[in-house]
This record gives sequence, C-alpha cells and structure tokens, in this order.
Amino acid sequence: MSSTVESSTPSKVDVLVIGAGPAGLTCALGLAKAGVNVRIVDHSPTKVQSGHADGVMPRTIEVLQSHGLADALLKDANQVYTISNYNYEADVGIKCAGRVTMINEPTARYPFAATQNQGVMEGILGDALLKEGAVIERPVRPTAIDLSTDENELKDPDAYPIKVRVKKLNEEEAAEELVHAKYVVGADGAHSWVRRALNVPMEGEQTAHVWAAIDFTPTPDSNFPDWRNIATVNAKDVGIMLIPREGGKIRLYVELGSEDGLVNAESGRLDSAQFSPDRLLEIAKKAFAPFVLKTTPENVEWWTVYVIGQRVASTFSVKDRVFIAGDACHTHSPKGGQGMNVSINDAHNLAWKLAYTIRGWAELIAFDKWFAEGFSAKARAKLIAEGNNVDLPGPLEAFRAFSSVTTGIRIRYAPSIITATAPDKTDENGPYTLTVGKRLPPQVVLRVADRRPVNVQDLCLSNGRFKLFVFTGDVLSADDIQSLNKLTTDLDALLSELPKGLLEVFSIIKAKDDAITYMDVPQTLRPHWTSIHFDGHASGPVYDAYGINREGALVVFRPDGYVGTITPLGEVELVRQYFRQFLK
Amino acid sequence: MSSTVESSTPSKVDVLVIGAGPAGLTCALGLAKAGVNVRIVDHSPTKVQSGHADGVMPRTIEVLQSHGLADALLKDANQVYTISNYNYEADVGIKCAGRVTMINEPTARYPFAATQNQGVMEGILGDALLKEGAVIERPVRPTAIDLSTDENELKDPDAYPIKVRVKKLNEEEAAEELVHAKYVVGADGAHSWVRRALNVPMEGEQTAHVWAAIDFTPTPDSNFPDWRNIATVNAKDVGIMLIPREGGKIRLYVELGSEDGLVNAESGRLDSAQFSPDRLLEIAKKAFAPFVLKTTPENVEWWTVYVIGQRVASTFSVKDRVFIAGDACHTHSPKGGQGMNVSINDAHNLAWKLAYTIRGWAELIAFDKWFAEGFSAKARAKLIAEGNNVDLPGPLEAFRAFSSVTTGIRIRYAPSIITATAPDKTDENGPYTLTVGKRLPPQVVLRVADRRPVNVQDLCLSNGRFKLFVFTGDVLSADDIQSLNKLTTDLDALLSELPKGLLEVFSIIKAKDDAITYMDVPQTLRPHWTSIHFDGHASGPVYDAYGINREGALVVFRPDGYVGTITPLGEVELVRQYFRQFLK
Repeated sequence: MSSTVESSTPSKVDVLVIGAGPAGLTCALGLAKAGVNVRIVDHSPTKVQSGHADGVMPRTIEVLQSHGLADALLKDANQVYTISNYNYEADVGIKCAGRVTMINEPTARYPFAATQNQGVMEGILGDALLKEGAVIERPVRPTAIDLSTDENELKDPDAYPIKVRVKKLNEEEAAEELVHAKYVVGADGAHSWVRRALNVPMEGEQTAHVWAAIDFTPTPDSNFPDWRNIATVNAKDVGIMLIPREGGKIRLYVELGSEDGLVNAESGRLDSAQFSPDRLLEIAKKAFAPFVLKTTPENVEWWTVYVIGQRVASTFSVKDRVFIAGDACHTHSPKGGQGMNVSINDAHNLAWKLAYTIRGWAELIAFDKWFAEGFSAKARAKLIAEGNNVDLPGPLEAFRAFSSVTTGIRIRYAPSIITATAPDKTDENGPYTLTVGKRLPPQVVLRVADRRPVNVQDLCLSNGRFKLFVFTGDVLSADDIQSLNKLTTDLDALLSELPKGLLEVFSIIKAKDDAITYMDVPQTLRPHWTSIHFDGHASGPVYDAYGINREGALVVFRPDGYVGTITPLGEVELVRQYFRQFLK
Repeated sequence: MSSTVESSTPSKVDVLVIGAGPAGLTCALGLAKAGVNVRIVDHSPTKVQSGHADGVMPRTIEVLQSHGLADALLKDANQVYTISNYNYEADVGIKCAGRVTMINEPTARYPFAATQNQGVMEGILGDALLKEGAVIERPVRPTAIDLSTDENELKDPDAYPIKVRVKKLNEEEAAEELVHAKYVVGADGAHSWVRRALNVPMEGEQTAHVWAAIDFTPTPDSNFPDWRNIATVNAKDVGIMLIPREGGKIRLYVELGSEDGLVNAESGRLDSAQFSPDRLLEIAKKAFAPFVLKTTPENVEWWTVYVIGQRVASTFSVKDRVFIAGDACHTHSPKGGQGMNVSINDAHNLAWKLAYTIRGWAELIAFDKWFAEGFSAKARAKLIAEGNNVDLPGPLEAFRAFSSVTTGIRIRYAPSIITATAPDKTDENGPYTLTVGKRLPPQVVLRVADRRPVNVQDLCLSNGRFKLFVFTGDVLSADDIQSLNKLTTDLDALLSELPKGLLEVFSIIKAKDDAITYMDVPQTLRPHWTSIHFDGHASGPVYDAYGINREGALVVFRPDGYVGTITPLGEVELVRQYFRQFLK
C-alpha cells in the first residue's frame, strides 16, 4: 500500500479522525478543546438526516453537559421515564403486565433517557467542533493507509508514522491528498475501512440477529396507551420494542426470526427485496392487537432492516498509533440502547489521553496501560452479552435491571496509574459517595462571590484539564481560612511543577457564614472569582453526600470527570505522587 | 402632514411597529405569534451593541420563557442573588453595612435578576420574530404620520385609518414608502418621534437627575469584595450603584449632583464636554476607597451621561389606534432596574389584546377598558415614584423592599371584564394560591402519557390563546374519570361556540394511580397526549399549593398568563359568561 501513499506532497496533522459520527466527533472535539491539531473527514456529503441511533443515556448527557451541550440536546429531545411491558394472551391479544421507572440511579443528574435523531447529535457536536476552529471535511474518503513498522519512529513523540491518502469525492477530477499523521482514529462505523485496512478481526457470537426498525408518527386514532413510554411487547409471533421519539414520533424495533425467510441461511446475507415498510407495519399491526397503532405512508420517516451480531474488535489500537472507536470496534443489539452511548463515552475517554501524549505531558510508555483501562469496550462487551441474555419482551424487572446498568452512571474505572488507590476515606458503596474511578455525582453548592447555585459537575468541564477540588473542611470565619496557609504553600509548589494549565483548582468550603467573601480566601484557593464555593445550598450538605468529613479532603478529577485520587486535606505530596506516575 | 403622506402608492399592514427595542420586539413577536400581519421598522442600522438596559427581573424572565426564550437569555447572562450596602465612615472610607438576598418571592421560578447587554435581549427577540417570518426593517425612519379624524373610519375594524410615510436610510436615493396601517405602535424610545408627532405630553416631576453609567471589567487586583453582587455605595460625596454583569463585567451607576457643573441650570441641558470615562473612574476610585476597584482604558466597554426625570406620558393611546410603549411612554431612574422590564411586560400585555381585536374576536368597544387595565404604567409610575423616595445608598431593607416589588411577580391586574370576579374559592393572600389577576405561579406536575415532569407555566405558552385548566379533582381510577361526562359535554358545547383555536384545554388530575393512562381520560380533556397531567411530582401537591380542593375547579388564563377567572368544576356556564363579556 505504501507505494501509492507516497506519491504526492504531504500535509501534516497530529490526529486524523476518519468518520464524523458521534464517536469521531466526540473524539475530535475533545482533542480540539485540549489544544491538539486535529482533522476530521467523512465520506458522506452530509450528516445523518433521519433514523439511526436515538437513545442518549444519563451519563452520556452528563458528558455532553461537560462540553456545555446538554441544553442543545435536550431542547427538542424526547425524555423517557417509564418502561412498560405487554405480553400476549390467547383470545385477548397483548395485555399490559406492568410499568416501571426507567432510570433508578439516585445520583443521575438527568433521570431519563433522551431520544433524538442521531443527526441532531451530530449537528450539536459538529457545531461545537466548528467553534474550536475545526471543520468536518466531507465528502472525503481514505483510500490508503500506511503505518510505519520502524520501532524508533513509533516511539518518537515528534514522528508522523502514519500516512493516509484521502480523496475529495465532490470534485470533478477527484483531488487526492497525502496526510502524515501522528495518530489516526478510525471511527468509520460498523463496516470500518480503517479496521479492515489494518486487518483487525471482530470477535463474538456467530449467530446473526435480524432486526428491522421503523420510525413513524402514529395516527391520532391509535390507542395503544404506552406509545409515549418504552414498551417491550411480547406478541404472539414476534418481539417488538417501542421507543418514543422526539416530535411525537415513535420507533419500533422488530426482532425477526429466521422463519421470515429474510436471511439466506448459507450466505447469512439479508434479502432486502423481501422487505418493505408496509410489511413491517403489517407485522406490528398484528402484534399490537387489540390495540391500534398505525400510521400512513407519508408519516413514515425512516426504516431499515439489518443483520447484527454481538461482536467486538480483537484490539482497539494498532501500535498505539491507530485507534478504532465506536461502531468500528463494537456492534450491538438495539436492546440496551448502547451503541451511540458506548461510542461517545469511549471517545470522550480516548480524547484526553491522546491529547496528553501529543502535548508531551504524558509518557508514551504509560499509554498502553491507559488504553487497557480506558477503553471499556471489553467490559461493555460483557454487559452487552448479559443484555443479550435478557429476553427482550421478557420479565420487566430483568429488563429494568439491564437498563439500569446501561445508564452509564455506574461506570467505574479499575485502579490504574490514573485512578489511584491513595488513602480513601470514603465508603465506595454509598450511592452519594465520591469513589475513585467513578464520575463526580452532581451536587449543588453556592458560589461565594455571588451566592449563585452551581452544580459541581459544571466545574468539571471538558477542557482537557485535571481538576483539584480542595474541600477545606470546617471554616467558620475568615481567620480559619487563613489558617490554611501551609496547604496553600504546598499547593503553590505543586502548581509550579506541573505544566501550566494542566491542573485547575476549585475550593469548596464547609461554612454557612454569610460574612465570608471570596476575597477572604487565600488566592491559591481562588485563582478566579468563580473558583470558590461553599456548602450552603438548600438541597443538602454536599460534604455528607460525598462522605467527606469536617477535616476536608483533596480530590483530583481526570479530564473526563472521573475521580483520579482522593487524599486527606494536608497530603499535597500524595497528589504530587499521583501525577508523577504518568506525567513526564 | 397628510398632503406629503398621500403622495405614493401605499402598502397595507395590520400593525406597524416603530422601534425595534425590547418593547417593539416583544409587541411584534406577540402579534406575529397570534397570526397578525405585522411590520417592524427601526431607524438604527443595527441592534444595540453594548450598554443600555441590563436588568431582567424574575417576571420578565417568565414572560420570555412563555415564548421559549428563557434558556437563550440565561445562557450567558449573569445572575444576581445578593444586594450589599456600603456606607462611608470618617477615617475609614466605605464599609460594608450588610448583605441581603435580592429576590424574596417564594413563587419566583427564577429567583434572581439576570443582567445582560440589551443587545443580547434584542437579538433573542429578533431571532424569535424571524422564525415567525417577520424581518426587522432597518435603517428605516418614519417621516410623517396621519391619523384619520373620521369617527366611522376609526370604528371600522376593516379600515386602515393611519398613514405613515417611512424612509429607507441606506439607499442612495432614499426610497420612501407610504404604509396604510390599522394600528401603529410607537416603541421608539425616550425621544419618541411618534409621541411628539401626535403631541402627547409627558407628565411628572420637573427635577432632572443626572446619571452617569459605565461598563467595564475590573483588573484582577481589584479587591472590592462585592463586585459580583449589587452594591449600593453611600460614599462621602456621591451615591453609586454597582451592577454585576455578564462576562465578568460590572456597571456603575453614578448619581451626579448639580455641583458637578454638568447641567446648565438655565437650559437643563447636559454639558457632555465636561465629562469623560476617566473622570467617572476617578470619582469611583475615590468613592470605593479603601477598596480598589479599577480598570484600564481598553477594558471600558461603554459609558454614558444622561439627564432623566421620572415621567409618564399623559396617554398611551390616541383614538385607540396609535399606541406608545416602552421608554416612549415612561422614563425611569435606573434604581429599580425597571426600564426594560416595564417595557417588555406592557408590550406583552398590549400584543394579545391588539391581536384579538384585529382577528375580529373581541369588541373594539371593550378596547378602551382593556387598556385602562392593561397598561400598568400608571401604577408603575406610582411605584417608580415610591422607588424615587428610596434613598438609593440608604437603608438596605428599604431598598430590598423596593426591589421585591419590582420583580414583577406581584403584578395583579384589577378586576375587569377579562379578570373576572367569578366565584373564587381561593385565598388571595397566600403566596402559593391562584388569584384572579395574578400570573400562574410555577408548579411541577407529571404528564400522564409519559410521566415526564412539566412546569405548568410551560403549558401557558405565549401563543395568543386563552388556556382552560380543568382541575378534575380526586380521580382515583379510570371509572372516576369517565364520571366527568357531564363536564365534557358542557365543555364540548363551549368549545364549539368559541372561535377555533381561541381556547386550549389542559387537565390536571388529582391522582397517584400508576394504572391510569392518558387513553382512560375523555377526549375533551386530552385534545393532545401532552394535555393531561396529574398531581404526582415529588416537589409537592399542586392542588394544595393553588388552594384548590378535592372537588376541583376550572381556571381560565389570559393569553399573557394571568388568571382570568376561577369557577367551581361544574360551572362551565360561568366560563361561557366570562368570554361573552368581551368576545363578539
């Protein structure tokens, strides 16, 4: 391949992202915000217009909010609070077996799943990327990729060991460009060109499932009472999952059996000529009887039939230089609503680690371990397998338990050099307790300078920086704060050692003294007037919720919002040791 | 004037709004959303870029939210929660005398004042107007106005009794157009051309006050601890009010005495050559000592000096055909932060009443009374006068009491044909009680179809329609709901009598039965799946909060969100009588 790649004047880029779906966009956005030189190309001339992924789980909404994008997503999205279950009874048809709350995580900031056209998500991420100065180049297709085999080059942080030839598809004499990249992210979908070009095999179950999906607006005389809730429908001959959508639309997922004759048993290929939206609506009509759930042809927005297995790529990186992300490395059943969520969360995790290496802050040698920890796809694959065992139109409690796990709220990164096992005073089992490896649960504090209520999650913005929360402990007066002098001296020393801008400091005082002003606090604890808060909001005591006692604590959050380490208040040295493990 | 007006080919419009500030835009937006043909012109080539009005009070934010615009406003606005007060002491300089919460209204949905550049407000309203298909025509100036004196023409709802000549200012050979309008709204500022052209005098105090205002970003070494709160500063020689602004800016209002020699005692005119931002900052520097509050020339965004009296136009309409609104009809001291708020609330009130007359739904004869009630400027003038008696850098409690009134939350329209005195089971004194003439206080209910929490204020959108809330009372089962048959029959009859689309129906059930679905409810009570709710949100029982008992009630809200009438549940006839008073 390399001979064709070498043939024109090359351009250089730190990271080339191939594919502008949710995974590629999230990764590019994280990189751009961390100051990395990134390009993103996509072979399609436009973003997705309709259909495709639609479920956005609570933790994914938190991740979007860390980029300031939750409002944009939620503006027109539908919110799902309830799951219902219908089972078939002879002579009756389907009958409601019960309803349960969908999201049961007490710390979820957004206690619902949002459903919204994937195109809207891509538009929101693309607009945010544009604000960072990066334009999605489309339609542009990669035609060749060449990864160096020179170990010295691969180890050199300044090298560009990957050459990718890309072709602009909208020009008459198709222009080709040779791109030299330090890193490549292949986020180019289930049929990933990057994955195949690098011969990364997929692993997993061999059995393929055939799913059909159709998006439509029901007619007003439709009387199925749960069409605004998720409904798992165990009909006589077929299993259906109904997802309520934005704008009064719904999606039906229909899991088709082999008896439908859609899949050629030998080739495993879909015979799509056997299919049409009319046939799908006919299946649904029978399944929903005695209820009416119908539409008219002009109210069908999108439909598809596809074959899918529960499969995961055998590796997510090649030589720690080319990464595959999103559908390119794992394919999912629609049951858990996981596809886009796993893609966004993994890309969110990949982006900052890649950025730290490129900026020269982190050791390349630490990289492998990070990805072993970071890419949670293996763990997710297990989850998906478990989900696969949940009989979709089966017991509601089982499905709810599965849904609960898939919210993303319970993600916990295992101990590693970036999720340290430093002395930890917290009880990791409490739902409201700060835990190393878990995300920062939302709590509201008051900003000292203006007494404005602030959600602490909004202090942990996705800007590529680590955050240090100084829980100062009991501070009842300005004098008490001044007694934090040793701490501030130690912190000043630490901050001067770290790369400028790597660590942001926020303080949360345990005080309800109206007389305290932000000017009373040592400057290290309030680098900006928006940095200092106190535990005085009516919603409840934040220290208690986090399991932090009156002596205070230091908590480091990774750039993706997960707790990196927790130490006693005075132990700045432990924080230094934490950073020394992986920073140059 | 009429001879020049008659000289070219006329165009026709229902309402011509002159002036695209907050008042004109709010009025045009309300008209456009109610389906009225409206044009809006402004002499300025662009919207306000900096400075001008900046305080948005809680009720005004609610009004914006009724147009779906609160998020856009709040995105980058500053929020003010606290007022501080500083007084001068000899040998010390100014010293903090205390801090209090600014907004003390328990029912305020937004418990803060938002501060934001007037240009942002104009941009938000202008964008919303554009979505309704109306473009702000600028720079366009009116040059002549002629109002018919023919009483028959003035009474004819189909007549266009006003002729306005407008001139496009950006064309080389200035193009003129003759506009025939049914109504004209003059929202063209304190020096209103419309007001002067129609010889409407201003009334009020003769004493002019000289105010200076300056917007700037303080330097990081500024150490005045309350610069993120409102601060009333009673310095040795001068009174200053500090307003924290968006983007870390502040505004200082400085009330200058006549000893500054800025105003010519004879002419009452300002000698602006006497002034500069440097001089203003010098005054502030002395006033704030011993604190530092300084800036650099490049961080001064805007400044102005102006002479203002507390004045109100003698009338707000001429022949019920030309209306003046906003600063054109009342000028304010900056003390209460009222200017833009009064303008927006009055324009909000004017728009729907004008729309109902133009659409032929209301009697023109009822119009005069509506405006006597509707334009609250007389009442506001009284308020302003009271505010004027509050010594600005004076006692904090007095200022807070004044601020509390100016939130807009307590606005209560007096009984009139559109705020009926029908049987009212509520206690009008309770803060959480529905009261005829007051706005709907926010409460959260659950939507039956999907159990989504919904703020009831978001059911009362500004779409030009009256809303009927059917509080069904205790309904524990689907059978109970079916027992509401007589009510639905009566309601069906009423709805068939009213103009189509004039009245929207929403229902709020007092039930916590998980088994109820929205399909169980009679269709009249759920014209759409989003129309039916129940009192089951964790934030508390809505019936109790509104003072409605288990027997239910019917509540009519005017298109501007104020309670029109309250009747017992079965009394559809009283609702009919309410509408008959003012509808054709």
